[in-house]
Amino acid sequence: MKPFAGRKSDSVSALGETRLIEAIRGWLGEVSPPSPFGIGDDCAVLAPCPRRQLVTTDPVIYGRHFDDSVPPAAVGAKLLKRNLSDLAAMGARPTAAVVALAIDPRVATRWLELFYRGMAAAAHRHGVAIVGGDVAQGDSFLGAFLTLFGEAAGSRVLLRTGARPGDWIYVTGKLGGSLLGHHWRFAPRLAEGRWLAGRPEIRSMMDISDGLAKDLHALTPPGACPAIEPAAVPVSPAARAFARHTGRPALHHALCDGEDYELVFSVARRADRAALARAWHRAFPRLAITCIGRFAPPGRLPPGSFALGSLHGYEHLR
Amino acid sequence: MKPFAGRKSDSVSALGETRLIEAIRGWLGEVSPPSPFGIGDDCAVLAPCPRRQLVTTDPVIYGRHFDDSVPPAAVGAKLLKRNLSDLAAMGARPTAAVVALAIDPRVATRWLELFYRGMAAAAHRHGVAIVGGDVAQGDSFLGAFLTLFGEAAGSRVLLRTGARPGDWIYVTGKLGGSLLGHHWRFAPRLAEGRWLAGRPEIRSMMDISDGLAKDLHALTPPGACPAIEPAAVPVSPAARAFARHTGRPALHHALCDGEDYELVFSVARRADRAALARAWHRAFPRLAITCIGRFAPPGRLPPGSFALGSLHGYEHLR
Repeated sequence: MKPFAGRKSDSVSALGETRLIEAIRGWLGEVSPPSPFGIGDDCAVLAPCPRRQLVTTDPVIYGRHFDDSVPPAAVGAKLLKRNLSDLAAMGARPTAAVVALAIDPRVATRWLELFYRGMAAAAHRHGVAIVGGDVAQGDSFLGAFLTLFGEAAGSRVLLRTGARPGDWIYVTGKLGGSLLGHHWRFAPRLAEGRWLAGRPEIRSMMDISDGLAKDLHALTPPGACPAIEPAAVPVSPAARAFARHTGRPALHHALCDGEDYELVFSVARRADRAALARAWHRAFPRLAITCIGRFAPPGRLPPGSFALGSLHGYEHLR
Repeated sequence: MKPFAGRKSDSVSALGETRLIEAIRGWLGEVSPPSPFGIGDDCAVLAPCPRRQLVTTDPVIYGRHFDDSVPPAAVGAKLLKRNLSDLAAMGARPTAAVVALAIDPRVATRWLELFYRGMAAAAHRHGVAIVGGDVAQGDSFLGAFLTLFGEAAGSRVLLRTGARPGDWIYVTGKLGGSLLGHHWRFAPRLAEGRWLAGRPEIRSMMDISDGLAKDLHALTPPGACPAIEPAAVPVSPAARAFARHTGRPALHHALCDGEDYELVFSVARRADRAALARAWHRAFPRLAITCIGRFAPPGRLPPGSFALGSLHGYEHLR
């Protein structure tokens, strides 16, 4: 669905700002708390928080993160889910969000309604209150910028740092080919992230947004390099399908495509990995975790593995 | 200064995303806490907060909130100050912020450096930590979206609701003509807002961003209308200067221009207003507060006053 209206009467400019904000509150429905705890005052008021808090921000921009082929409700859900994936990556629980819109006045009111309803449904599913926002004009532009708050679910939050040389590298799910639909159909790994943050043998974690080849650098401890066993990498069916079109190896897509929104995490070198696998399977019988390699000292790669570093993920601003 | 570079080598596309984010951390300097309390992990980690918290979001967009005539450092400061003004309007204290950028790859690195350094200087002045952000590509677009957190400074936060018929209407400072420079030179009324929130005779408050004529509706209690005494409205010298260009009355500019970032608040009908004026003057000898009218029952306007409602402030998306 195209986000721009053919007729002015169907566009947000016909509605005007005041009525648009009223409409947005209606579309958000029960995930929009009453003022001053939601939209309607200079700021939104949030309750005190006795736990460590987390905050992250990610946008969706027309032409970058979605196009006419993505249903508007899925765009709204994707906006929230991208941010939820960042909270999942630290093992935290979401609480509230604000959304700043920058839109061309020709944007169709109906498109925006479906966008907000899709976001509201995702917010309801994950217990997120949409407490505020802003609407500004952006000529020939359509973007929404969400800032998400959360709180630590247990005694620790999992950082990107913490892995040591020799630790194992694991991923959830399967990787690659997200452009074929996974980039908006994915489910953020919130329960999985919280579960992993509660396991002491997990040393560090992040989500895969720009592609494992690029993102894994942030998890790599000083004095080591990520040694990946190619046959172990869980290549998604979408990566294989995509590879038939591009002529590149499916493995390349699994490592470089980005927008997987899976978790990558390190497991302590001496951990009981069989026990971890059994416990995981009991907790999440429908989602696999896969050991794809380890952080090896440079020049001492295990036989059959390759040093990730020659490949690149998605580079922005290029 | 134009935000777009003449040569590709001077643009952010020459820098690339990874180096740009490193550069941003450098430009922010000491207002950028180390990871995970700042930029560098999936989320930023914030301390627990025993007080009620506040959150607000406002952007600056090229062509809407600034143009080539505004120094880039002032654009960065304005982005933060717009949000600080929302916190001031509730009598709260700022703590931390995140900033999402959407930029054309042709944006000049030097422009962006001055923008971030200006924001950092304002953040330092007001004790705000810039804890996170995002950089996304927006073709032919330049906008920055800031979300600001704060906490209640005292036992209450001042809402927009709370005024009663008969209450007095006050404003800080002078109004109008912000386009001549005040829209980026203003100082958010943080100390003043906290002081007012501590005075029990103040019943409600907001900041003036779209013009008093429009904003005051949100402060008006049901069954009343804002009766303004024209001669009492503090018209700024800029409103008078602007009026000479536009041919409109200076009072019109004072009531309708917007971007005043002054506070408008209601004072209880039976308050000791002389005592309030004395206490204010002791606390803020260099800034005036002015009573401009009261919330009158409709049809019972005090002699010489007019009902605000026939005039309009700045309407977005038109």
